[in-house]
Amino acid sequence: MRRLIIGIDIGGTKVAGGLVTPQGRLVKSLILPTHAERGYAASLAQILTLIQQLHDAAGGPEALEGIGLLAPGPLNPHTGLVINPPNLPGWKNVKLAEKVERRFHVKAKVENDANAAGLAEVLFGAAVGHRHVFYVTVSTGIGTGIIINRKIYHGKNGVAGEGGHVCVDYHSPYRCGCGSFGCIEALAAGPAMVRRAQVHLLQDHTQPSLLRDLTHGQLNRLTPQLIAQAAESGDAVAKFIVEQTGFFLGVWLGGMIALFDPDAIVIGGGVAQIGKPLFQAIRNTIPYHSINPNLARRVPLLRAKLNKNVGIYGAAALFLRAGVEAENF
Amino acid sequence: MRRLIIGIDIGGTKVAGGLVTPQGRLVKSLILPTHAERGYAASLAQILTLIQQLHDAAGGPEALEGIGLLAPGPLNPHTGLVINPPNLPGWKNVKLAEKVERRFHVKAKVENDANAAGLAEVLFGAAVGHRHVFYVTVSTGIGTGIIINRKIYHGKNGVAGEGGHVCVDYHSPYRCGCGSFGCIEALAAGPAMVRRAQVHLLQDHTQPSLLRDLTHGQLNRLTPQLIAQAAESGDAVAKFIVEQTGFFLGVWLGGMIALFDPDAIVIGGGVAQIGKPLFQAIRNTIPYHSINPNLARRVPLLRAKLNKNVGIYGAAALFLRAGVEAENF
Repeated sequence: MRRLIIGIDIGGTKVAGGLVTPQGRLVKSLILPTHAERGYAASLAQILTLIQQLHDAAGGPEALEGIGLLAPGPLNPHTGLVINPPNLPGWKNVKLAEKVERRFHVKAKVENDANAAGLAEVLFGAAVGHRHVFYVTVSTGIGTGIIINRKIYHGKNGVAGEGGHVCVDYHSPYRCGCGSFGCIEALAAGPAMVRRAQVHLLQDHTQPSLLRDLTHGQLNRLTPQLIAQAAESGDAVAKFIVEQTGFFLGVWLGGMIALFDPDAIVIGGGVAQIGKPLFQAIRNTIPYHSINPNLARRVPLLRAKLNKNVGIYGAAALFLRAGVEAENF
Repeated sequence: MRRLIIGIDIGGTKVAGGLVTPQGRLVKSLILPTHAERGYAASLAQILTLIQQLHDAAGGPEALEGIGLLAPGPLNPHTGLVINPPNLPGWKNVKLAEKVERRFHVKAKVENDANAAGLAEVLFGAAVGHRHVFYVTVSTGIGTGIIINRKIYHGKNGVAGEGGHVCVDYHSPYRCGCGSFGCIEALAAGPAMVRRAQVHLLQDHTQPSLLRDLTHGQLNRLTPQLIAQAAESGDAVAKFIVEQTGFFLGVWLGGMIALFDPDAIVIGGGVAQIGKPLFQAIRNTIPYHSINPNLARRVPLLRAKLNKNVGIYGAAALFLRAGVEAENF
């Protein structure tokens, strides 16, 4: 009998779930509203309902290899504990993996999204064949996952891999959501791009820019998508902001290459959709911030493959084992 | 019969070697001049002579578990290849591990110094009992070693762990030996401390300072030791330079904690000898550059234990295996 994996991606507004084959193929997917605003019992019920539907579709516990759950952080992947996620009101120290295991008699694991997405990219996405991979997702924030020997590196408390909070400019005036200054997330994530463009347009107030036209002069309407669009149309300010984003990411990735000497770097997330101009700026910068420019230049910068349903794939990846040979790192 | 390990530390001026027990006790040590200036054959002969003496003292190949060799980089620990070290003229792609194995019929490994020192601190130094450790040595440069599950993390090409070249200030005017700007090594290693003090005294040229007196006004005579000494005597400029060094290291280590979530950080090297004022500045800074200040504050910052003969201990550590349980990270 074919064994399937249930992957569940718990967000603040919706819970997405799917059945994934051991080869990483999504054969069924479902979505339910999280009902987070109704509190703990209601949102947990939605999650369990979704799992139940997928469980029944698969044909019961015998048909299932495991249930992977991506939950909002902070959480502990070692113990399956969801601590106190800001966007799941009422949740406090919920032993989610244990609850799911008891209910469905199938092994369950809890993981954070960037770690799981990184693992999925290595097992059946952009980085198949690579062992040590640094995964990056650039969207509202910058999430990273450290994959060593095709496994997630968790660190002591299960909170390793927060590369978005590595500082590349300690006296930057740009504050990070974490409270610190100069984290790469505070400089290069989507909202950071928007803030830099807004500051630029305020300071260089006589400079004409498509960004002013596209927002009808209301800079609070600026989005990363509008910046990307203006850059593509050749707008100088927008092009500068995109190139600067690539520069920041390049400085930072130069350091990550020095630390991890990875087989590959995978970059996903909404901001990565900007594509070539962003990637080119990253590639141009990396050698200038590398102890070994020739080697750093050769590290493949891969675009993430599993953009749609990456959460479901990531959750399912927790139960896929690549044939990892001897732990010979 | 008790099995011993030979640890060899190859420097540009001397080769140090020792016999180390499986418990990490140094029972015999010897030093020879490297004679690097006489070229490849002469310096290799010195190394082999030293190994021979230790081999004979141990009682031959049956008494030996292995021969660990710390060689100047670049090198490849996977293959035991010493590539082209600037301070060993004439050496080019030398298969050092293979040569030593053939000559002595004992297994040999080649490693870089910071990696090996980090491993030694974990196996029988300051970080015994810890599994995931970030090791730092601050002296002429900043070397780091990433220890995961009590093993050195090497990365794809064996050059991982170059944390000294992570950039904490991309627009710093301070250039690093690697060619880049703003690497932590360019800001916080011994020569960087001296440079910052020199610049400070030049810019604030009317400011009296013990540093001017100790160098008789010749700032090119400034050393990290003189800065430490002046700071201890209460000199304001020297104290500022030491605190700034701690600040830089703290910003950087905040990022390393976010990435690695380590059990502990071990700090060694000459600059670490400054001790309390430096460590206090590091500790004060880390929480401000951490996504999780409470957790970051709790990561033990340990002073390296194996300062004297750390090279010999490190080389020997390559043949010590802690009883590492399942690779469950």
